[in-house]
Amino acid sequence: MTDARPIGVFDSGLGGLTVLAELVRALPGESFIYLGDTARVPYGARSDRTIQRYSREAADWLLARDIKLFVIACNTATAYAGDMLQRELSVPVIGVIEPGVQALLSRSRNRRVGVIGTRATIRSDVYARRIRERDADIQVFSKACPLFVPLVEEGWIDKKITRLVVQEYLSELAREDVDTVVLGCTHYPLIKKTILSEFPELSLVDSSEETARAVAARIQSEGLAADGEAGAVRIYLTDLTRQMSDLESFLSGLSIESLEEVELHAG
Amino acid sequence: MTDARPIGVFDSGLGGLTVLAELVRALPGESFIYLGDTARVPYGARSDRTIQRYSREAADWLLARDIKLFVIACNTATAYAGDMLQRELSVPVIGVIEPGVQALLSRSRNRRVGVIGTRATIRSDVYARRIRERDADIQVFSKACPLFVPLVEEGWIDKKITRLVVQEYLSELAREDVDTVVLGCTHYPLIKKTILSEFPELSLVDSSEETARAVAARIQSEGLAADGEAGAVRIYLTDLTRQMSDLESFLSGLSIESLEEVELHAG
Repeated sequence: MTDARPIGVFDSGLGGLTVLAELVRALPGESFIYLGDTARVPYGARSDRTIQRYSREAADWLLARDIKLFVIACNTATAYAGDMLQRELSVPVIGVIEPGVQALLSRSRNRRVGVIGTRATIRSDVYARRIRERDADIQVFSKACPLFVPLVEEGWIDKKITRLVVQEYLSELAREDVDTVVLGCTHYPLIKKTILSEFPELSLVDSSEETARAVAARIQSEGLAADGEAGAVRIYLTDLTRQMSDLESFLSGLSIESLEEVELHAG
Repeated sequence: MTDARPIGVFDSGLGGLTVLAELVRALPGESFIYLGDTARVPYGARSDRTIQRYSREAADWLLARDIKLFVIACNTATAYAGDMLQRELSVPVIGVIEPGVQALLSRSRNRRVGVIGTRATIRSDVYARRIRERDADIQVFSKACPLFVPLVEEGWIDKKITRLVVQEYLSELAREDVDTVVLGCTHYPLIKKTILSEFPELSLVDSSEETARAVAARIQSEGLAADGEAGAVRIYLTDLTRQMSDLESFLSGLSIESLEEVELHAG
């Protein structure tokens, strides 16, 4: 039995394209529809209720396109709307936080772990809470790294500036002797190599990779797999012009069927 | 004749506090009410209509507090809502763009000028358009510097990282032989010294200073001056908790009467 319906991938902006890239790599036979709400990014600056409303609108838009599984490829949307969507949607819902937390817990040897993310994600404390729910004795050190997203957006991946910023942010965690750090922002996989070159002893959990792995497992366990031919990748953004220059770094290596602008409406 | 009513100062966030600081310095006898819409910052990510609606709500809130003059201490709000507010409000309205443009035109010797700002401001092209309206022959070079705001927000003012970023952004303008650059973002005065230490030959136009000068002149010409005793400075933010850590760098040197959270409603 095969299921040719596409997998829906939603993010407030472009960062979720790192999740999409990992999904395509893990599941080359599947079709994907990516919806990036670039007209209203960043969600981190919005109220909880607004984030929930926007996420619901995105989910409704994707459900109307007959998706078989909904991936929340956005830390903020997962933190504030993940539980709600899991309850309300008619298809399986997978967010980016849980897979990252699970990998972090299974990989850390010394039980001292780090979480890095945007200010909004770190302020929400969602990673630390979910980690402690699983293991109350683990030591969690969180660090907001607000310069990483603009550095990635500038395409300044392997610059001296970026290496200095990595040193500035991560040395604090290194001093706390953490052995594993989760990348709690979908932009961060793009500077993973730079982080590792500065801190080679760290084990980095890439939530985009882990989420792709979780989706692949779920597709298998629920019998939702497509028939294995190459699937199509379609990208829809709510504002196409503003972020055009940023798209490039995210799309490298992705083969795309279409890129369109769409409008979201309240459901 | 004296007019003890306060001057209203509006910004989408905290950057406008650099304008407030210059206003207090220029007009120590005046009282000020600053309204920062920190719950909905950054406006640069919003649609034109939304920016106009938010700005109108802020204006109504300040007018209800009996202000005698309305300062738009925000480049985005000035660009998208300045003309509308100038038409509609019952008090004089002064934005941050016009004073900066005037200073730029009067200071440049070689008629090659630079504009730096956020991506939203540079994309709006508002500075370049207004400059060319006044002087069609002037050469305008615009450069978005999206890392400056997060660097200021981190308090990384005189760090090596910041000097490298300044080099990266400004060397392009320096190569074009511009002699004068306008700081088209209210955060940038906080890294003015760093910019000047890297590019000492540049003449920098600080729109916060220029706006304060324009307000002082208008207060005089319209006979709106207070009686010269020390005025009160009141700050209202639509979200007090989220940006608390950023406030510090903006408030240094400002003596404040009160700091409160308020809610804005549609007029």
